[in-house]
Amino acid sequence: MTGTLHIVGLGPGGAEHRTPAAARAVADAEVVVGYGPYVTQAQDLLHGKQTIVRGAMGEEAARADEALDRAAAGARVALVSSGDAGVYGMAARTLARAAALPADARPEVVVVPGVTAALAAGALLGAPLADDFATLSLSDLHTPWETVERRLRLVAEAGLALALYNPRSKARTWQLDRVIELLRDARDGDTPVALATDVAREDETVELTTLATIDPTRVTMRTVLIVAGDSAELAGPWLIATRGAGVPA
Amino acid sequence: MTGTLHIVGLGPGGAEHRTPAAARAVADAEVVVGYGPYVTQAQDLLHGKQTIVRGAMGEEAARADEALDRAAAGARVALVSSGDAGVYGMAARTLARAAALPADARPEVVVVPGVTAALAAGALLGAPLADDFATLSLSDLHTPWETVERRLRLVAEAGLALALYNPRSKARTWQLDRVIELLRDARDGDTPVALATDVAREDETVELTTLATIDPTRVTMRTVLIVAGDSAELAGPWLIATRGAGVPA
Repeated sequence: MTGTLHIVGLGPGGAEHRTPAAARAVADAEVVVGYGPYVTQAQDLLHGKQTIVRGAMGEEAARADEALDRAAAGARVALVSSGDAGVYGMAARTLARAAALPADARPEVVVVPGVTAALAAGALLGAPLADDFATLSLSDLHTPWETVERRLRLVAEAGLALALYNPRSKARTWQLDRVIELLRDARDGDTPVALATDVAREDETVELTTLATIDPTRVTMRTVLIVAGDSAELAGPWLIATRGAGVPA
Repeated sequence: MTGTLHIVGLGPGGAEHRTPAAARAVADAEVVVGYGPYVTQAQDLLHGKQTIVRGAMGEEAARADEALDRAAAGARVALVSSGDAGVYGMAARTLARAAALPADARPEVVVVPGVTAALAAGALLGAPLADDFATLSLSDLHTPWETVERRLRLVAEAGLALALYNPRSKARTWQLDRVIELLRDARDGDTPVALATDVAREDETVELTTLATIDPTRVTMRTVLIVAGDSAELAGPWLIATRGAGVPA
Protein backbone atom coordinates (compact mmCIF):
# COMPACT_ATOMS: atom_id res chain seq x y z
CA MET A 1 0.00 0.00 0.00
CA THR A 2 1.70 3.15 -1.22
CA GLY A 3 1.26 6.56 0.35
CA THR A 4 0.98 10.06 -1.06
CA LEU A 5 3.57 12.62 -2.03
CA HIS A 6 2.56 16.28 -2.19
CA ILE A 7 5.12 18.44 -3.98
CA VAL A 8 4.33 21.79 -2.44
CA GLY A 9 5.01 25.38 -3.47
CA LEU A 10 5.10 27.45 -0.27
CA GLY A 11 4.92 30.81 -2.02
CA PRO A 12 7.63 33.45 -1.86
CA GLY A 13 8.04 34.01 1.85
CA GLY A 14 5.72 34.31 4.81
CA ALA A 15 2.40 32.59 5.37
CA GLU A 16 0.33 35.43 3.87
CA HIS A 17 1.14 34.34 0.30
CA ARG A 18 0.96 30.58 0.99
CA THR A 19 -2.21 28.89 -0.22
CA PRO A 20 -4.48 26.86 2.07
CA ALA A 21 -3.82 23.81 -0.16
CA ALA A 22 -0.08 24.15 0.46
CA ALA A 23 -0.53 24.71 4.19
CA ARG A 24 -2.83 21.71 4.50
CA ALA A 25 -0.48 19.42 2.58
CA VAL A 26 2.35 20.23 5.01
CA ALA A 27 0.22 20.20 8.17
CA ASP A 28 -1.30 16.83 7.25
CA ALA A 29 2.00 15.22 6.26
CA GLU A 30 3.69 12.56 8.35
CA VAL A 31 7.03 13.37 6.75
CA VAL A 32 8.18 16.84 5.61
CA VAL A 33 11.19 16.91 3.30
CA GLY A 34 12.94 20.00 1.99
CA TYR A 35 15.99 22.19 1.66
CA GLY A 36 16.59 23.51 5.18
CA PRO A 37 15.50 27.14 4.66
CA TYR A 38 12.28 25.99 2.96
CA VAL A 39 11.42 23.70 5.86
CA THR A 40 11.99 26.70 8.12
CA GLN A 41 9.62 28.69 5.89
CA ALA A 42 6.91 26.15 6.84
CA GLN A 43 7.88 26.17 10.54
CA ASP A 44 4.42 27.32 11.68
CA LEU A 45 2.95 24.14 10.12
CA LEU A 46 5.22 21.75 12.00
CA HIS A 47 3.58 20.32 15.10
CA GLY A 48 6.07 17.89 16.57
CA LYS A 49 4.43 14.74 15.18
CA GLN A 50 6.00 14.93 11.73
CA THR A 51 9.33 13.45 10.73
CA ILE A 52 11.40 16.33 9.35
CA VAL A 53 14.11 15.75 6.75
CA ARG A 54 16.16 18.87 6.08
CA GLY A 55 18.44 18.66 3.06
CA ALA A 56 21.34 20.72 1.82
CA MET A 57 21.84 22.70 -1.39
CA GLY A 58 22.98 20.40 -4.19
CA GLU A 59 21.31 17.34 -2.69
CA GLU A 60 18.07 17.74 -4.63
CA ALA A 61 18.20 14.26 -6.16
CA ALA A 62 18.62 12.65 -2.76
CA ARG A 63 15.69 14.65 -1.40
CA ALA A 64 13.48 13.62 -4.30
CA ASP A 65 14.38 9.96 -3.71
CA GLU A 66 13.87 10.18 0.03
CA ALA A 67 10.45 11.76 -0.43
CA LEU A 68 9.46 9.17 -3.03
CA ASP A 69 10.80 6.23 -1.01
CA ARG A 70 8.92 7.25 2.10
CA ALA A 71 5.70 7.85 0.17
CA ALA A 72 6.13 4.54 -1.67
CA ALA A 73 6.45 2.88 1.74
CA GLY A 74 3.04 4.23 2.75
CA ALA A 75 3.64 7.63 4.35
CA ARG A 76 1.93 10.93 3.62
CA VAL A 77 4.90 13.05 2.53
CA ALA A 78 5.20 16.76 1.74
CA LEU A 79 8.24 17.84 -0.29
CA VAL A 80 8.47 21.61 -0.03
CA SER A 81 9.88 24.28 -2.34
CA SER A 82 9.77 28.04 -2.07
CA GLY A 83 7.55 29.84 -4.60
CA ASP A 84 5.94 27.40 -7.04
CA ALA A 85 7.46 23.91 -6.98
CA GLY A 86 6.92 23.70 -10.75
CA VAL A 87 8.97 26.83 -11.53
CA TYR A 88 12.65 26.00 -10.96
CA GLY A 89 11.56 24.00 -7.90
CA MET A 90 11.51 20.31 -6.97
CA ALA A 91 8.53 19.17 -9.08
CA ALA A 92 10.18 18.26 -12.41
CA ARG A 93 13.08 16.34 -10.94
CA THR A 94 10.86 14.43 -8.53
CA LEU A 95 8.20 13.57 -11.10
CA ALA A 96 10.85 12.33 -13.52
CA ARG A 97 12.13 9.96 -10.83
CA ALA A 98 8.58 8.91 -9.92
CA ALA A 99 7.84 8.16 -13.58
CA ALA A 100 10.79 5.77 -13.64
CA LEU A 101 9.22 3.63 -10.88
CA PRO A 102 6.98 0.69 -11.81
CA ALA A 103 3.39 1.99 -11.77
CA ASP A 104 2.41 -0.26 -8.85
CA ALA A 105 5.34 0.99 -6.73
CA ARG A 106 4.61 4.63 -7.48
CA PRO A 107 2.89 6.63 -4.75
CA GLU A 108 0.10 9.02 -5.58
CA VAL A 109 1.76 12.34 -6.42
CA VAL A 110 0.03 15.73 -6.24
CA VAL A 111 1.71 18.98 -7.25
CA VAL A 112 0.40 21.96 -5.26
CA PRO A 113 0.96 25.25 -7.10
CA GLY A 114 2.15 28.42 -5.38
CA VAL A 115 2.87 32.10 -5.97
CA THR A 116 6.19 32.16 -7.77
CA ALA A 117 8.70 34.92 -6.98
CA ALA A 118 8.13 36.75 -10.27
CA LEU A 119 4.46 37.32 -9.45
CA ALA A 120 5.22 38.55 -5.93
CA ALA A 121 7.95 40.86 -7.25
CA GLY A 122 5.61 42.09 -9.97
CA ALA A 123 2.95 42.99 -7.41
CA LEU A 124 5.48 45.01 -5.40
CA LEU A 125 6.52 46.95 -8.48
CA GLY A 126 3.05 47.56 -9.88
CA ALA A 127 2.16 45.45 -12.89
CA PRO A 128 5.30 44.87 -14.98
CA LEU A 129 4.11 41.40 -16.08
CA ALA A 130 0.65 42.51 -17.18
CA ASP A 131 1.55 42.24 -20.82
CA ASP A 132 3.33 39.11 -22.12
CA PHE A 133 6.39 37.91 -20.21
CA ALA A 134 8.96 35.14 -20.00
CA THR A 135 10.71 33.58 -17.05
CA LEU A 136 14.27 32.45 -17.65
CA SER A 137 16.80 30.89 -15.34
CA LEU A 138 20.38 32.10 -15.77
CA SER A 139 21.79 28.95 -14.22
CA ASP A 140 23.95 26.88 -16.54
CA LEU A 141 24.24 24.03 -14.05
CA HIS A 142 21.93 21.79 -16.12
CA THR A 143 21.29 23.82 -19.29
CA PRO A 144 24.21 24.62 -21.62
CA TRP A 145 25.08 28.32 -21.56
CA GLU A 146 24.56 28.57 -25.34
CA THR A 147 20.93 27.56 -24.82
CA VAL A 148 20.43 30.16 -22.08
CA GLU A 149 21.93 32.83 -24.32
CA ARG A 150 19.96 31.81 -27.41
CA ARG A 151 16.66 31.91 -25.51
CA LEU A 152 17.52 35.25 -23.96
CA ARG A 153 18.33 36.84 -27.33
CA LEU A 154 15.02 35.73 -28.80
CA VAL A 155 12.79 36.81 -25.89
CA ALA A 156 14.66 40.12 -25.63
CA GLU A 157 14.07 40.67 -29.34
CA ALA A 158 10.39 39.85 -28.81
CA GLY A 159 10.22 42.75 -26.33
CA LEU A 160 8.68 40.62 -23.59
CA ALA A 161 9.04 41.51 -19.95
CA LEU A 162 11.54 39.14 -18.37
CA ALA A 163 11.68 37.58 -14.94
CA LEU A 164 15.22 36.28 -14.48
CA TYR A 165 15.67 33.60 -11.81
CA ASN A 166 18.98 32.38 -10.36
CA PRO A 167 20.68 35.46 -11.80
CA ARG A 168 23.91 35.35 -9.81
CA SER A 169 25.61 33.51 -6.98
CA LYS A 170 29.00 33.86 -5.34
CA ALA A 171 30.44 31.26 -7.70
CA ARG A 172 28.45 32.25 -10.80
CA THR A 173 29.03 35.89 -11.68
CA TRP A 174 30.02 36.26 -15.34
CA GLN A 175 26.67 34.95 -16.57
CA LEU A 176 24.73 38.00 -15.40
CA ASP A 177 27.38 40.37 -16.79
CA ARG A 178 26.99 38.66 -20.16
CA VAL A 179 23.18 38.81 -19.97
CA ILE A 180 23.28 42.54 -19.29
CA GLU A 181 25.50 42.95 -22.35
CA LEU A 182 23.04 40.99 -24.50
CA LEU A 183 20.06 42.92 -23.16
CA ARG A 184 21.79 46.25 -23.80
CA ASP A 185 22.28 45.16 -27.42
CA ALA A 186 18.62 44.25 -27.84
CA ARG A 187 16.82 46.89 -25.77
CA ASP A 188 17.09 50.59 -24.87
CA GLY A 189 19.49 51.58 -22.11
CA ASP A 190 16.69 53.30 -20.19
CA THR A 191 14.66 50.07 -20.01
CA PRO A 192 13.58 49.78 -16.36
CA VAL A 193 15.09 46.88 -14.43
CA ALA A 194 14.09 45.92 -10.90
CA LEU A 195 16.10 43.88 -8.41
CA ALA A 196 13.67 42.21 -6.04
CA THR A 197 15.50 40.40 -3.25
CA ASP A 198 14.01 38.26 -0.47
CA VAL A 199 10.53 39.10 -1.72
CA ALA A 200 7.78 38.76 0.89
CA ARG A 201 10.37 38.18 3.61
CA GLU A 202 11.34 40.45 6.48
CA ASP A 203 14.41 41.80 4.75
CA GLU A 204 12.69 42.30 1.36
CA THR A 205 14.29 44.95 -0.84
CA VAL A 206 13.33 46.31 -4.23
CA GLU A 207 15.68 48.49 -6.26
CA LEU A 208 14.63 50.14 -9.48
CA THR A 209 17.36 50.83 -12.00
CA THR A 210 17.86 50.60 -15.77
CA LEU A 211 19.73 48.41 -18.21
CA ALA A 212 22.31 51.16 -18.61
CA THR A 213 22.94 51.68 -14.91
CA ILE A 214 22.38 48.29 -13.24
CA ASP A 215 25.10 47.25 -10.80
CA PRO A 216 25.28 43.44 -11.07
CA THR A 217 27.06 43.13 -7.73
CA ARG A 218 23.78 44.18 -6.05
CA VAL A 219 22.21 40.93 -7.35
CA THR A 220 22.26 37.85 -5.12
CA MET A 221 20.98 34.31 -5.55
CA ARG A 222 17.82 35.36 -3.72
CA THR A 223 17.11 38.14 -6.23
CA VAL A 224 14.58 37.98 -9.03
CA LEU A 225 15.41 40.44 -11.78
CA ILE A 226 12.47 41.99 -13.61
CA VAL A 227 13.36 43.56 -16.95
CA ALA A 228 10.52 45.71 -18.29
CA GLY A 229 8.98 44.76 -21.61
CA ASP A 230 8.72 47.19 -24.49
CA SER A 231 5.15 48.14 -23.56
CA ALA A 232 6.04 49.14 -19.98
CA GLU A 233 6.25 52.59 -18.50
CA LEU A 234 6.99 54.17 -15.15
CA ALA A 235 3.90 55.99 -13.94
CA GLY A 236 3.52 57.41 -10.46
CA PRO A 237 5.35 55.02 -8.13
CA TRP A 238 4.72 52.02 -10.40
CA LEU A 239 6.17 50.06 -13.27
CA ILE A 240 3.24 49.15 -15.51
CA ALA A 241 3.09 47.04 -18.67
CA THR A 242 0.27 48.51 -20.63
CA ARG A 243 -1.29 46.28 -23.34
CA GLY A 244 -3.53 49.25 -24.05
CA ALA A 245 -4.33 49.60 -20.37
CA GLY A 246 -2.60 52.97 -20.22
CA VAL A 247 -5.00 54.36 -22.78
CA PRO A 248 -7.82 56.19 -20.98
CA ALA A 249 -11.19 54.82 -22.13
CA MET B 1 -8.35 61.44 3.99
CA THR B 2 -8.01 58.83 1.26
CA GLY B 3 -8.64 55.13 1.76
CA THR B 4 -6.95 52.02 0.48
CA LEU B 5 -7.37 49.99 -2.68
CA HIS B 6 -6.25 46.39 -2.72
CA ILE B 7 -6.05 44.92 -6.22
CA VAL B 8 -6.47 41.27 -5.43
CA GLY B 9 -5.64 38.07 -7.32
CA LEU B 10 -8.05 35.41 -6.07
CA GLY B 11 -6.17 32.49 -7.60
CA PRO B 12 -7.55 30.18 -10.25
CA GLY B 13 -10.75 28.90 -8.66
CA GLY B 14 -11.77 27.73 -5.21
CA ALA B 15 -10.50 28.93 -1.88
CA GLU B 16 -7.77 26.25 -1.64
CA HIS B 17 -5.47 28.15 -4.01
CA ARG B 18 -6.34 31.63 -2.70
CA THR B 19 -3.72 33.18 -0.44
CA PRO B 20 -4.48 34.43 3.08
CA ALA B 21 -3.40 37.94 1.98
CA ALA B 22 -6.02 37.89 -0.78
CA ALA B 23 -8.72 36.51 1.51
CA ARG B 24 -7.96 39.12 4.18
CA ALA B 25 -8.02 42.01 1.69
CA VAL B 26 -11.52 41.01 0.58
CA ALA B 27 -12.86 40.14 4.04
CA ASP B 28 -11.61 43.45 5.47
CA ALA B 29 -12.89 45.58 2.58
CA GLU B 30 -15.85 47.91 2.93
CA VAL B 31 -16.38 47.81 -0.83
CA VAL B 32 -15.74 44.81 -3.11
CA VAL B 33 -15.61 45.55 -6.83
CA GLY B 34 -15.21 43.03 -9.63
CA TYR B 35 -16.47 41.30 -12.72
CA GLY B 36 -19.53 39.35 -11.56
CA PRO B 37 -18.10 35.80 -11.70
CA TYR B 38 -14.97 36.93 -9.80
CA VAL B 39 -17.08 38.46 -7.03
CA THR B 40 -18.90 35.11 -6.89
CA GLN B 41 -15.52 33.40 -6.60
CA ALA B 42 -15.02 35.39 -3.35
CA GLN B 43 -18.56 34.68 -2.11
CA ASP B 44 -17.35 32.96 1.07
CA LEU B 45 -15.58 36.20 2.07
CA LEU B 46 -18.68 38.39 1.78
CA HIS B 47 -20.41 38.95 5.11
CA GLY B 48 -23.29 41.28 4.40
CA LYS B 49 -21.57 44.45 5.61
CA GLN B 50 -19.66 45.15 2.41
CA THR B 51 -20.94 47.16 -0.51
CA ILE B 52 -20.69 44.87 -3.55
CA VAL B 53 -20.22 46.28 -7.05
CA ARG B 54 -20.49 43.61 -9.76
CA GLY B 55 -19.42 44.73 -13.21
CA ALA B 56 -19.86 43.30 -16.67
CA MET B 57 -17.32 42.11 -19.25
CA GLY B 58 -15.99 45.04 -21.25
CA GLU B 59 -16.55 47.53 -18.41
CA GLU B 60 -13.08 47.17 -16.93
CA ALA B 61 -12.31 50.88 -17.16
CA ALA B 62 -15.48 51.79 -15.30
CA ARG B 63 -14.67 49.23 -12.58
CA ALA B 64 -11.15 50.59 -12.18
CA ASP B 65 -12.55 54.12 -11.82
CA GLU B 66 -15.25 53.09 -9.40
CA ALA B 67 -12.75 51.26 -7.21
CA LEU B 68 -10.34 54.22 -7.29
CA ASP B 69 -13.07 56.80 -6.65
CA ARG B 70 -14.40 54.95 -3.64
CA ALA B 71 -10.92 54.41 -2.23
CA ALA B 72 -10.04 58.07 -2.87
CA ALA B 73 -13.17 59.01 -0.92
CA GLY B 74 -11.88 57.12 2.11
CA ALA B 75 -13.14 53.54 1.80
CA ARG B 76 -11.20 50.30 2.09
CA VAL B 77 -11.78 48.78 -1.34
CA ALA B 78 -10.90 45.38 -2.82
CA LEU B 79 -10.90 45.08 -6.61
CA VAL B 80 -10.84 41.39 -7.43
CA SER B 81 -9.48 39.44 -10.40
CA SER B 82 -9.22 35.72 -10.94
CA GLY B 83 -5.70 34.26 -10.92
CA ASP B 84 -3.07 36.96 -10.46
CA ALA B 85 -4.37 40.51 -10.93
CA GLY B 86 -1.04 41.45 -12.50
CA VAL B 87 -1.24 38.80 -15.26
CA TYR B 88 -3.92 39.88 -17.76
CA GLY B 89 -5.99 41.06 -14.77
CA MET B 90 -7.11 44.45 -13.44
CA ALA B 91 -3.81 45.68 -11.96
CA ALA B 92 -2.18 47.43 -14.94
CA ARG B 93 -5.24 49.32 -16.07
CA THR B 94 -6.12 50.42 -12.55
CA LEU B 95 -2.60 51.50 -11.62
CA ALA B 96 -2.31 53.49 -14.85
CA ARG B 97 -5.46 55.38 -13.87
CA ALA B 98 -4.27 55.82 -10.29
CA ALA B 99 -0.98 57.22 -11.55
CA ALA B 100 -2.88 59.89 -13.46
CA LEU B 101 -4.44 61.21 -10.24
CA PRO B 102 -2.72 64.04 -8.32
CA ALA B 103 -0.56 62.38 -5.65
CA ASP B 104 -2.63 63.86 -2.79
CA ALA B 105 -5.89 62.50 -4.25
CA ARG B 106 -4.45 59.05 -4.85
CA PRO B 107 -5.44 56.32 -2.37
CA GLU B 108 -2.90 53.87 -1.07
CA VAL B 109 -2.82 51.01 -3.58
CA VAL B 110 -1.60 47.50 -2.78
CA VAL B 111 -1.38 44.72 -5.37
CA VAL B 112 -1.91 41.26 -3.84
CA PRO B 113 -0.38 38.52 -6.01
CA GLY B 114 -2.11 35.21 -6.69
CA VAL B 115 -1.65 31.84 -8.36
CA THR B 116 -2.10 32.52 -12.07
CA ALA B 117 -3.89 29.95 -14.24
CA ALA B 118 -0.69 28.80 -15.95
CA LEU B 119 0.82 27.66 -12.65
CA ALA B 120 -2.33 25.81 -11.60
CA ALA B 121 -2.59 24.16 -15.02
CA GLY B 122 1.09 23.26 -14.87
CA ALA B 123 0.66 21.56 -11.50
CA LEU B 124 -2.21 19.46 -12.87
CA LEU B 125 -0.10 18.33 -15.81
CA GLY B 126 3.10 17.65 -13.89
CA ALA B 127 5.82 20.23 -14.39
CA PRO B 128 5.63 21.59 -17.96
CA LEU B 129 6.83 25.06 -16.88
CA ALA B 130 9.84 23.83 -14.91
CA ASP B 131 12.25 24.95 -17.57
CA ASP B 132 11.94 28.47 -19.07
CA PHE B 133 8.49 29.56 -20.24
CA ALA B 134 6.54 32.49 -21.63
CA THR B 135 2.96 33.58 -21.10
CA LEU B 136 1.27 35.19 -24.09
CA SER B 137 -2.24 36.50 -24.53
CA LEU B 138 -3.79 35.82 -27.92
CA SER B 139 -6.21 38.73 -27.55
CA ASP B 140 -5.81 41.46 -30.15
CA LEU B 141 -8.30 43.73 -28.41
CA HIS B 142 -5.54 46.09 -27.21
CA THR B 143 -2.39 44.69 -28.85
CA PRO B 144 -2.08 44.72 -32.66
CA TRP B 145 -2.23 41.21 -34.10
CA GLU B 146 1.15 41.70 -35.81
CA THR B 147 2.70 42.18 -32.37
CA VAL B 148 1.06 39.02 -31.01
CA GLU B 149 2.30 37.07 -34.01
CA ARG B 150 5.82 38.48 -33.89
CA ARG B 151 6.19 37.63 -30.20
CA LEU B 152 4.81 34.16 -30.75
CA ARG B 153 7.22 33.39 -33.59
CA LEU B 154 10.21 34.42 -31.47
CA VAL B 155 9.27 32.52 -28.31
CA ALA B 156 8.34 29.47 -30.38
CA GLU B 157 11.74 29.65 -32.06
CA ALA B 158 13.34 29.92 -28.60
CA GLY B 159 11.76 26.56 -27.72
CA LEU B 160 10.20 27.88 -24.52
CA ALA B 161 7.14 26.30 -23.00
CA LEU B 162 4.16 28.54 -23.66
CA ALA B 163 1.13 29.36 -21.58
CA LEU B 164 -1.42 30.92 -23.93
CA TYR B 165 -4.13 33.01 -22.26
CA ASN B 166 -7.35 34.25 -23.88
CA PRO B 167 -6.83 31.75 -26.70
CA ARG B 168 -10.32 31.81 -28.20
CA SER B 169 -13.79 33.19 -27.62
CA LYS B 170 -17.04 32.89 -29.56
CA ALA B 171 -16.25 36.07 -31.46
CA ARG B 172 -12.49 35.54 -31.76
CA THR B 173 -11.72 32.23 -33.48
CA TRP B 174 -9.25 32.73 -36.36
CA GLN B 175 -6.48 33.91 -34.04
CA LEU B 176 -5.99 30.47 -32.47
CA ASP B 177 -6.12 28.76 -35.89
CA ARG B 178 -3.36 31.09 -37.05
CA VAL B 179 -1.30 30.49 -33.90
CA ILE B 180 -1.50 26.72 -34.39
CA GLU B 181 -0.25 27.21 -37.95
CA LEU B 182 2.69 29.30 -36.73
CA LEU B 183 3.54 26.81 -33.99
CA ARG B 184 3.42 23.90 -36.45
CA ASP B 185 5.94 25.77 -38.60
CA ALA B 186 8.29 26.35 -35.67
CA ARG B 187 7.93 23.15 -33.64
CA ASP B 188 7.46 19.40 -34.13
CA GLY B 189 3.96 18.12 -34.78
CA ASP B 190 4.22 15.75 -31.83
CA THR B 191 4.89 18.62 -29.38
CA PRO B 192 2.52 18.01 -26.46
CA VAL B 193 -0.23 20.59 -26.00
CA ALA B 194 -2.62 20.67 -23.06
CA LEU B 195 -6.01 22.34 -22.89
CA ALA B 196 -6.73 23.21 -19.26
CA THR B 197 -10.23 24.59 -18.84
CA ASP B 198 -11.86 25.92 -15.65
CA VAL B 199 -8.75 24.97 -13.70
CA ALA B 200 -9.30 24.46 -9.97
CA ARG B 201 -13.06 24.75 -10.45
CA GLU B 202 -15.70 22.04 -10.14
CA ASP B 203 -15.91 21.42 -13.86
CA GLU B 204 -12.14 21.47 -14.44
CA THR B 205 -11.00 19.52 -17.50
CA VAL B 206 -7.54 18.80 -18.85
CA GLU B 207 -7.01 17.37 -22.34
CA LEU B 208 -3.61 16.34 -23.60
CA THR B 209 -3.08 16.50 -27.34
CA THR B 210 -0.34 17.56 -29.77
CA LEU B 211 0.32 20.42 -32.17
CA ALA B 212 -0.53 18.10 -35.06
CA THR B 213 -3.84 16.90 -33.66
CA ILE B 214 -5.24 19.76 -31.56
CA ASP B 215 -8.91 20.57 -32.21
CA PRO B 216 -9.20 24.35 -31.70
CA THR B 217 -12.96 24.15 -31.24
CA ARG B 218 -12.30 22.42 -27.88
CA VAL B 219 -10.71 25.66 -26.63
CA THR B 220 -12.87 28.21 -24.80
CA MET B 221 -12.18 31.61 -23.25
CA ARG B 222 -11.72 29.84 -19.91
CA THR B 223 -8.99 27.58 -21.31
CA VAL B 224 -5.28 28.05 -20.75
CA LEU B 225 -3.27 26.33 -23.44
CA ILE B 226 0.07 24.88 -22.41
CA VAL B 227 2.45 24.15 -25.28
CA ALA B 228 5.40 22.04 -24.18
CA GLY B 229 8.88 23.50 -24.53
CA ASP B 230 11.61 21.71 -26.42
CA SER B 231 13.03 20.19 -23.21
CA ALA B 232 9.72 18.58 -22.19
CA GLU B 233 8.79 14.94 -22.27
CA LEU B 234 5.83 12.77 -21.38
CA ALA B 235 6.83 10.41 -18.57
CA GLY B 236 4.37 8.27 -16.68
CA PRO B 237 1.18 10.30 -16.39
CA TRP B 238 3.05 13.61 -16.47
CA LEU B 239 4.33 16.28 -18.81
CA ILE B 240 7.73 17.31 -17.47
CA ALA B 241 10.13 20.01 -18.64
CA THR B 242 13.51 18.70 -17.74
CA ARG B 243 16.36 21.28 -17.49
CA GLY B 244 18.54 18.31 -16.72
CA ALA B 245 16.07 17.15 -14.08
CA GLY B 246 15.36 13.97 -16.04
CA VAL B 247 18.98 12.93 -15.79
CA PRO B 248 19.37 10.51 -12.88
CA ALA B 249 22.08 11.78 -10.53
